[in-house]
Amino acid sequence: MKHKLTKVNGSVAAPMGFKAAGVFCDIKRLGTGKGSNKGRKRDLALIVSDSPASVAGMFTTNQVCAAPVKVCVERTPQATGRAIVINSGNANACTGKQGLKDAREMTSVTAELLGVDPSSVLVGSTGRIGVIMPMVNVRQGIHAASRILDRTSSSADHAAEAIMTSDTRPKTIAVETQIDGKPVRIGGICKGAGMIQPGMSSDGRRPAAGPPGLHATMLCFITTDASIAPAALQRALREAVAQSFNRITVDGDMSTNDTVLVMANSLSGARRIETREIDSRRGPLTKAAGAFHAALNHVCLELAQMIVRDGEGVTRFVTVRVEGADSLADADAASRAVANSALVKTSWHGGDPNWGRIIDALGYSSARVQEDRVDIGYSKPGSRKVSWSLKRGQPTKTSFRELCVLAALPEFDLHIRLNLGKASALMYAADLTEEYVEFNKGDVADPSSLGG
Amino acid sequence: MKHKLTKVNGSVAAPMGFKAAGVFCDIKRLGTGKGSNKGRKRDLALIVSDSPASVAGMFTTNQVCAAPVKVCVERTPQATGRAIVINSGNANACTGKQGLKDAREMTSVTAELLGVDPSSVLVGSTGRIGVIMPMVNVRQGIHAASRILDRTSSSADHAAEAIMTSDTRPKTIAVETQIDGKPVRIGGICKGAGMIQPGMSSDGRRPAAGPPGLHATMLCFITTDASIAPAALQRALREAVAQSFNRITVDGDMSTNDTVLVMANSLSGARRIETREIDSRRGPLTKAAGAFHAALNHVCLELAQMIVRDGEGVTRFVTVRVEGADSLADADAASRAVANSALVKTSWHGGDPNWGRIIDALGYSSARVQEDRVDIGYSKPGSRKVSWSLKRGQPTKTSFRELCVLAALPEFDLHIRLNLGKASALMYAADLTEEYVEFNKGDVADPSSLGG
Repeated sequence: MKHKLTKVNGSVAAPMGFKAAGVFCDIKRLGTGKGSNKGRKRDLALIVSDSPASVAGMFTTNQVCAAPVKVCVERTPQATGRAIVINSGNANACTGKQGLKDAREMTSVTAELLGVDPSSVLVGSTGRIGVIMPMVNVRQGIHAASRILDRTSSSADHAAEAIMTSDTRPKTIAVETQIDGKPVRIGGICKGAGMIQPGMSSDGRRPAAGPPGLHATMLCFITTDASIAPAALQRALREAVAQSFNRITVDGDMSTNDTVLVMANSLSGARRIETREIDSRRGPLTKAAGAFHAALNHVCLELAQMIVRDGEGVTRFVTVRVEGADSLADADAASRAVANSALVKTSWHGGDPNWGRIIDALGYSSARVQEDRVDIGYSKPGSRKVSWSLKRGQPTKTSFRELCVLAALPEFDLHIRLNLGKASALMYAADLTEEYVEFNKGDVADPSSLGG
Repeated sequence: MKHKLTKVNGSVAAPMGFKAAGVFCDIKRLGTGKGSNKGRKRDLALIVSDSPASVAGMFTTNQVCAAPVKVCVERTPQATGRAIVINSGNANACTGKQGLKDAREMTSVTAELLGVDPSSVLVGSTGRIGVIMPMVNVRQGIHAASRILDRTSSSADHAAEAIMTSDTRPKTIAVETQIDGKPVRIGGICKGAGMIQPGMSSDGRRPAAGPPGLHATMLCFITTDASIAPAALQRALREAVAQSFNRITVDGDMSTNDTVLVMANSLSGARRIETREIDSRRGPLTKAAGAFHAALNHVCLELAQMIVRDGEGVTRFVTVRVEGADSLADADAASRAVANSALVKTSWHGGDPNWGRIIDALGYSSARVQEDRVDIGYSKPGSRKVSWSLKRGQPTKTSFRELCVLAALPEFDLHIRLNLGKASALMYAADLTEEYVEFNKGDVADPSSLGG
């Protein structure tokens, strides 16, 4: 079923009953004199719901996970969420008991200022790993942010800016859909840039089957005025993340902090979507659930793609489409092997329609591959008009020039058919550039440049 | 037992009864007029034994494997090997039936010129994937090489040059050991540079347990005048490769062509090492077998490390030492995750003693990891004096300056203790540099720059 979506302004403040704020409180402790905050990037955000909201979350499956992730895993899903407090500049990861205490304090300070229960507040962090949170600054920041909470677009934009690390631009979206005739909005903000190949689950545990958790700090915060039971929201989010954030890679590294949180506060007045309306395997079972699902999927996919396009040093966005695999696990393994191969990614950077490195990566992946069955081709993004460079393991007569034109596009699709079965998978991937290396080799003089 | 080894000159021509040659026959078809071969890098090598030799081999476990690999898998181990013919400039991979025919023809042309059986000749190739071999040039090259076969050091050096691709220097070694009082020599040449994380087995099949095959074209050819049964030689080689070539990574990519071949022609006059003298699990059981084993291990390890040091764009050589893992599979997975993390490798390039990215990589590896047990430290190569930056998941008081001094060395050891069990593993790894990206983004105008 096709559900009509309208783009709207305001990102996380677009749905009814949400306020946001972003402030600078010098979490990196760059040092500030009086009045020196001008021009500093904001580093602390608040997103607050006027009324109790259903909350769901998906989190990194890295065994080394940050304190805020541990706090959120305990508190999701729930029916009485009120706020999310987020900082950049410090990941609060590998910070032991003090880190956990600090993450909890971030929620309790926020809760006190808002007059809500601490357990209704969630928390996210991104930045340097292994540094104790500068709680004096953080407390000041939360106080400052709570005083300027607002429903305006610019407040939401400040929150989007505050969660950025090496991102070159804020990432925001908001859409409106209809649930049984009533307008319902979903808005979101996210950040990414490096350490990007999330593999998230709802409890930090890796699924027995399916993609291994990989790596990036990506944070995403979604608000909606839909009315939906927490368990249904959790199912919808799991599916949306599986098709979006868990299908992206910048550098193949999975972060300690990857987090997606969604709050649904019911204030649209649309009817409530019950748990039974979303089956954990078959997906949405009613029109209302379908409309919500489609809108949430759209928001997650758009935000996930923004992360890849703005990845560190990225100059090309490549959708790797694997079809005809023997199993879903094979399709996943094949698409990830290609999307993470250093040699494939550098050839994308050079605009080279290389198939040798691609079939090589397929061959060493854990997917079953038969050389004389493999097709490899290129197309414009989303196009079905594929220029095949390899068919059944043999080079085709497609001109090298035609392939070069496609591989030189800033965005293109790479089509891989294994011709062994019916399973398919895709990955949204990026090239590997000198700029990525230059950026990440870091500056030893500035340890804060290296983060999680 | 410690076995005394003496370094000798001559690499593959150092053992008794071996000749070598390297010629230029323009396999990349750069175009040559008369007399224009001057200054061209040689691209075809022959290594020939005066008498029938035991031959053993280890090969890529990539499912997409090159024609020469297929031919060698069929022909090893054997007792009557006579020669190896090798070319660079063309991998003869993904070349279908014609490729297999060409690889066989390379051996039969060589056999005819030497007056030996074609099945006694082995073959190796490296270079561009998916291009049919220029057999006219190859035949000319084999003829030319066969005419200048010689026992001199410079002939062996020409062979070492001929197998190079993006290597900046030839890689050679020869040692002498004693077997029951008689001198026995082992010599070797190899090439590497990019597509380097071999995972080899004797039949191209991946072991049920153990390291996944990963990726690089590395070729290695070893000669010895020891007398050893083919099955014993195969066992010794498997163990030597497991501890050397299968423990290196430059870019985490496993090639279609990885090959290690060894010929043992008995001409030292030392007594024969029988199959029963080397147990496939416990290793060598006699002093003679032990001496041979130690010498072969040394040759393989030295050559493997040369490949990492001369990897594309490499500026640092890091030995990743994982101890205290729950199982061998965990130790292997942990060491590979760290050695292949883009973020860890770029931090090495920057000389940054980062532990956040390292513990992050450990956390997303398939190894069991407990954050509050992990120790991470740095030392000079091979030194037991470790400067610990992390102990039981907590930053230590070691000065950042002290760690920076170690991480700024061109070679250092990274020590990781998981403190969960008794298994250990190590990887010889390299940094990721702008030069690697620059080199591998390739030149679309010159497809021959992109190889396997």
